[in-house]
Amino acid sequence: MSGTLYGTGLGPGDPELMTLKAARLISGADVVAYPALAGAESFARSIAAAHLKDGAVELRLDVPMTVARGPAQAAYDAGAVEISGVLEQGTDVVFLCEGDPLFYGSFMYIQARLSGRFTVEVVPGVNSISASVAAAGPPLVARNEVLTVIPGPLAADDMRARIEGADAVAIMKVGRHLGKIRDVLDGLGLVDRATYVERATLAEQVVLPLADAPADAPYFSMILVTKGRDQWL
Amino acid sequence: MSGTLYGTGLGPGDPELMTLKAARLISGADVVAYPALAGAESFARSIAAAHLKDGAVELRLDVPMTVARGPAQAAYDAGAVEISGVLEQGTDVVFLCEGDPLFYGSFMYIQARLSGRFTVEVVPGVNSISASVAAAGPPLVARNEVLTVIPGPLAADDMRARIEGADAVAIMKVGRHLGKIRDVLDGLGLVDRATYVERATLAEQVVLPLADAPADAPYFSMILVTKGRDQWL
Repeated sequence: MSGTLYGTGLGPGDPELMTLKAARLISGADVVAYPALAGAESFARSIAAAHLKDGAVELRLDVPMTVARGPAQAAYDAGAVEISGVLEQGTDVVFLCEGDPLFYGSFMYIQARLSGRFTVEVVPGVNSISASVAAAGPPLVARNEVLTVIPGPLAADDMRARIEGADAVAIMKVGRHLGKIRDVLDGLGLVDRATYVERATLAEQVVLPLADAPADAPYFSMILVTKGRDQWL
Repeated sequence: MSGTLYGTGLGPGDPELMTLKAARLISGADVVAYPALAGAESFARSIAAAHLKDGAVELRLDVPMTVARGPAQAAYDAGAVEISGVLEQGTDVVFLCEGDPLFYGSFMYIQARLSGRFTVEVVPGVNSISASVAAAGPPLVARNEVLTVIPGPLAADDMRARIEGADAVAIMKVGRHLGKIRDVLDGLGLVDRATYVERATLAEQVVLPLADAPADAPYFSMILVTKGRDQWL
């Protein structure tokens, strides 16, 4: 009988924002796996650290950050082979995912490679939008408003059209796209409706009006835009 | 010194999907508050039940379900007065919210009434989209795809335009709007790209292709639509 693969969301960064289920699975796991940018500490592992069992085996997937997709996909190929070797022995594997596993997360690459052969259970986690909204204060959407979630790398023209068609917007993975995003929002007259949130729920959390955002935004930053806030109450 | 109001997300329904922080706050709370549809059990309270402290005071806000907004707003007025009376005595209040407090949630009405006078901390929770995607299997969005979240009550023409402009769609609060939504998706040739999820993470959970969805969908149901699934890997 093969083991089960758990894709486990750990939430946005504050270890207390992991679910009871994630904490239970991690603290009982003989084998955990997690992605890491080649050479760097794994963010997912750092969230889970206090719950890891002594002597747990750790499978670290070093994922290269290249524009070409081949090297990263090769890393997921190799990781999937390593994980399947454990599952075949009847041992469960808990895969650690920052945020929510299937919300722009890399767990899908592992799921796609293994879900045909093994039982894969996804444990949802608190995503970074919920964390950023909680940090910023007022709600992002309510009632019958439409929320559009836009990845920062989107081209400016496409981004502009998507924002025009939305009632509220969350722009993820801001990083080096901050200047472009600010220009788009400026053209739409929405800069003073936009809030910048960096590393929500971590000690280094930053919440600022977009106009005051730093020039060098990290990958884990987000811009929240509301249009209809006045109509909520 | 006044007490703090915690708006605490409890996740989609499975009590094990509440965060460690929510469980800690609830189990230490002398006073909790929660909304309930007039006459019915509170869903939020049912998720939290196992963590409530013996003898905790419970402030129940009976919210009438009427089309007119006045009666519900009057209920939030009365609830805010009751909560502020507790906070003024220096006692914290933990407000129980299903899902994520500020993601289409009613906590905003309490927050709007009290955040000027008291410290209000929002504790994010797992939202119903993450829960539904985890139940349905494959990811909803990845890479640079745009996600649009649409409330079911939106008019058909508006809904159609929003779906056309999206890469992936989550339609919330389906309930009695199921027929209209199915017609819109049918017109766009997207029915076979749509999955119906009801009461995700609860024992009664249902996951079906939209074509097989029951005619009488409950309020807590969702439709997930992906367009670009083939390009993910």
